[in-house]
Amino acid sequence: MTNDNKHLLIIGGVAAGMKAAAKARRESPTMKITVVTDEQYISYAGCGMPYFIGDIIKDSKKLILREPLYFKNMHTIDVLTRHQATAIDIKSKQVKVKNLEKNKDLTFGYDKLIIATGAQPIVPPLPGISLGNIFTLRTMSDVLKIRACVDGGKVKNAVIVGGGLIGLEMAENLVLRGIKVTVVELLDQILPPLDRDMAQLVQKHVMEKGVEVITSDGVKSFEGNSSGAVTTVITDKRHLPADMVILSVGIKPNTKLAQEAGIDIGTTRAIKVNERMETNVPDVYAIGDCAESVHLVTGKPVWMALGSTAAKMGRVAAINATGGADTFKGVLGTLIVKVFELHVAKAGLSEREAVKEGFQVESAIVPAGDKAHYYPETKDIIIKLIADKTTKKLLGAEIVGEGIVDKRIDIIATALTFGATVDQISKLDLAYAPPYAMSMDAIIVAANVLGNKLSGKTAGILPYKVAEKRDRGEDFVLLDVRTEIEYKNGHIKGCKHIPLDKLASRTYELDNSQEIITYCRAGLRAAQAYRILKNAGFRNVKYMDGSIMAWT
Amino acid sequence: MTNDNKHLLIIGGVAAGMKAAAKARRESPTMKITVVTDEQYISYAGCGMPYFIGDIIKDSKKLILREPLYFKNMHTIDVLTRHQATAIDIKSKQVKVKNLEKNKDLTFGYDKLIIATGAQPIVPPLPGISLGNIFTLRTMSDVLKIRACVDGGKVKNAVIVGGGLIGLEMAENLVLRGIKVTVVELLDQILPPLDRDMAQLVQKHVMEKGVEVITSDGVKSFEGNSSGAVTTVITDKRHLPADMVILSVGIKPNTKLAQEAGIDIGTTRAIKVNERMETNVPDVYAIGDCAESVHLVTGKPVWMALGSTAAKMGRVAAINATGGADTFKGVLGTLIVKVFELHVAKAGLSEREAVKEGFQVESAIVPAGDKAHYYPETKDIIIKLIADKTTKKLLGAEIVGEGIVDKRIDIIATALTFGATVDQISKLDLAYAPPYAMSMDAIIVAANVLGNKLSGKTAGILPYKVAEKRDRGEDFVLLDVRTEIEYKNGHIKGCKHIPLDKLASRTYELDNSQEIITYCRAGLRAAQAYRILKNAGFRNVKYMDGSIMAWT
Repeated sequence: MTNDNKHLLIIGGVAAGMKAAAKARRESPTMKITVVTDEQYISYAGCGMPYFIGDIIKDSKKLILREPLYFKNMHTIDVLTRHQATAIDIKSKQVKVKNLEKNKDLTFGYDKLIIATGAQPIVPPLPGISLGNIFTLRTMSDVLKIRACVDGGKVKNAVIVGGGLIGLEMAENLVLRGIKVTVVELLDQILPPLDRDMAQLVQKHVMEKGVEVITSDGVKSFEGNSSGAVTTVITDKRHLPADMVILSVGIKPNTKLAQEAGIDIGTTRAIKVNERMETNVPDVYAIGDCAESVHLVTGKPVWMALGSTAAKMGRVAAINATGGADTFKGVLGTLIVKVFELHVAKAGLSEREAVKEGFQVESAIVPAGDKAHYYPETKDIIIKLIADKTTKKLLGAEIVGEGIVDKRIDIIATALTFGATVDQISKLDLAYAPPYAMSMDAIIVAANVLGNKLSGKTAGILPYKVAEKRDRGEDFVLLDVRTEIEYKNGHIKGCKHIPLDKLASRTYELDNSQEIITYCRAGLRAAQAYRILKNAGFRNVKYMDGSIMAWT
Repeated sequence: MTNDNKHLLIIGGVAAGMKAAAKARRESPTMKITVVTDEQYISYAGCGMPYFIGDIIKDSKKLILREPLYFKNMHTIDVLTRHQATAIDIKSKQVKVKNLEKNKDLTFGYDKLIIATGAQPIVPPLPGISLGNIFTLRTMSDVLKIRACVDGGKVKNAVIVGGGLIGLEMAENLVLRGIKVTVVELLDQILPPLDRDMAQLVQKHVMEKGVEVITSDGVKSFEGNSSGAVTTVITDKRHLPADMVILSVGIKPNTKLAQEAGIDIGTTRAIKVNERMETNVPDVYAIGDCAESVHLVTGKPVWMALGSTAAKMGRVAAINATGGADTFKGVLGTLIVKVFELHVAKAGLSEREAVKEGFQVESAIVPAGDKAHYYPETKDIIIKLIADKTTKKLLGAEIVGEGIVDKRIDIIATALTFGATVDQISKLDLAYAPPYAMSMDAIIVAANVLGNKLSGKTAGILPYKVAEKRDRGEDFVLLDVRTEIEYKNGHIKGCKHIPLDKLASRTYELDNSQEIITYCRAGLRAAQAYRILKNAGFRNVKYMDGSIMAWT
């Protein structure tokens, strides 16, 4: 196909749109390429915004990767800012565009159209929502407003509504600016994509850093002062003082333009596309935060708005729109967030999601060092692996810790892409030297622990399930097998204590008719105790995965 | 199978042997398990030794993970140190063992035998080799001697013979102790497993840190003083002063015991095993540094002595020897080494190895940031990817840089395990947030660059190939497209300079009959210049991969 005189029109000028424009130009030197965006800024780094507010990034210009002039001069791409696409006519292949500066209506014809309209923050219609100093964080103008408000020096108390990724990033960065922060989350846990047990580890850390975290409480309204600025957040249960409010309750895809044009919307409410990023309408593509994807573990449609996905979708759409052929098979919902000293990541399905999808789920929680234990500055991470009992394939992982987490989640994401079994993960030839890993990397150790559970060699039980049993009033012995000193420094209420090295000689203290659940600091000695008891003939024994380290 | 009264004998008490012993006990509570080793210490961390010499690890006890008493008390495993296995009788299933302390011969019967005799340093029989203060680094007694020598405070000059991983780790750690270090390498590059172009980046860094690096020079002999201590290393070309010499010219597997017993040795000269870690002799297994493996990319036998592999082999042999079933499919030759501020890693095949194996090789060198470029402390890494032109599968990767390297090599190792294509790697859903990666991770960027080369969209040329062309006196234009300032601060001799933003309007300065090779700082602008020239009708254009950053 020759692209001479053909016109590629792109609606949207942030991650997906500008990536598509630049890639299209590399693919086709002759095609006419136009980008229209209603925003003033293009090509900015949305994910970097919290760090500009926290003054980790000093200059807002650093968030803007490219200016329109760069695209004009370097790539002969026309980027029209403050130009809002208002209607797509798929029959005549025309887009109506309003020049917002001049309030003038224009019409652009296209041969190929890429829709990259992004997503927008959900703003619940609560009383007082339009008071001053209530912000969402999505666009450059959002971030400049929040930064100015913080720089004003009058914000003592901030309330963040929503304990998701952006909420927690904002919590950290506002604390860095000396502000007292409260996070209010409607659900019974922060970080909803994670399982509750892992999210609780994060919540504990955030609270230790001085952030108040309130779960299971909903914001009802906001109150302000005479100058119209917010002063109070009123929830179902509380009145919280607030000089500033960040709304981070979620985002929704911008699909109105597409929908009105007759373009199919998917079950996820984002624009439906195939793996070539084509919509149901010929020559119209959708990419980035407004487009749907496929979950590589479930094979089902999923909507995951992430900059990394946007960039990949942008490339694929550009290649196809310029006459080439490329596909984007889907995502794993991989995510990572830095929360103070903690790194928090997920790939694939959580235990809760896997159960909901109907898998026969086995999972394990395994604390492990991120480097050789004798190497200085080795830190722990806690890995939760989730697998399918039937196929023994990994379904997902969640990792939390002060040690190196991103490496392990990327190993998992790569393995999930290829449908790896837990056994295959345990045999990976990962790079080993003391500054980088244990001789068996933390991921391999975790896979071995889960493998033992899958093959029935051991019976581990997740800490939250032990807590549930206790809450239900079930009769079982919780056996602490740590040393005398560790036990005295704190233990789980109601436990029995026999140190591991005395266990073999003191089994007579235990009743074989009772269920016994062993625990230690991180799970290793609990598993050894499990074996000692099994070998001694105890029939109903389990050990607590992750033990104290994963107990919240 | 019941293991009651069965005896598992293990020869060797370091990584593989002790891992096998501990795992066997977990698999079988009743089997009798005995470990014999001629060494005084067991279960020590060989890979940590250089860091003890450098005083990064302060206490030698930290290198010893477990004592024999631990195995006796916790696992009822008998560990006999200073007991040397001298002969295996595979017919009567007996092993002759000499108690080195009491100089007494013993005989042990076995039902299952695991050979984990490890490897030993190659000591070339050169004149003066037995002078004082000439060391190898392999065992606990080696490391204690070297540390004592350094602690003595009289070592001003050290010569390291061999520029491999251990040689470079030792170079760094001796520099940390204030010693002037010279590395002598017989080959024309340090780090022989790497391609020369990547190794040269490391060599440059090491030399900047004050280490003298001599390549293409062989050690002939050593001279000493009246008290028998080394003073001089004499090479083919030089006399080097030396108060201490570290020999790190390589290791060889300890196979004598196995060979004399009639156990098959493989083409790699290590003990031949199948994927169950079984030798050709029934009930005899071999694991760790004395055993062969399979290269997962070539499918051919390979010998890679690494602690991480030893641990995995130990588990597999233990499971099989106790009546279970497990397999170890092979390795990727994954390696990583910290060299001062540089992280250096490899997985799969180098370009040189891939060519030698007969693959149709395409490769790319791509510098990229390890985090979002606007995030503080983002550092560069340089990625070399090697692929098969026919299948478009990745064959290997080498990564060097001050940024995060281990994560990327582990992603590659995982992808190689599953036979990933370059395209699949470019679509991986890796974890993205500014503190961890660019929105398209460095590995994805590199895969995209290589993908463009594989599909013929761009024509990149590796820097070393440009140097070869120049050395051959070929006629071509080397075109620097960086800014005026960058050009004035240093450029490749004999280049022509046209800044990228002027290139489109100054193409008349170039001769279409000549080959043109563009370069910039890291390759991105060189690739843009390539496209501008191609679009302007130039027929014979290439761009230099990695450009100045990869030019040595």
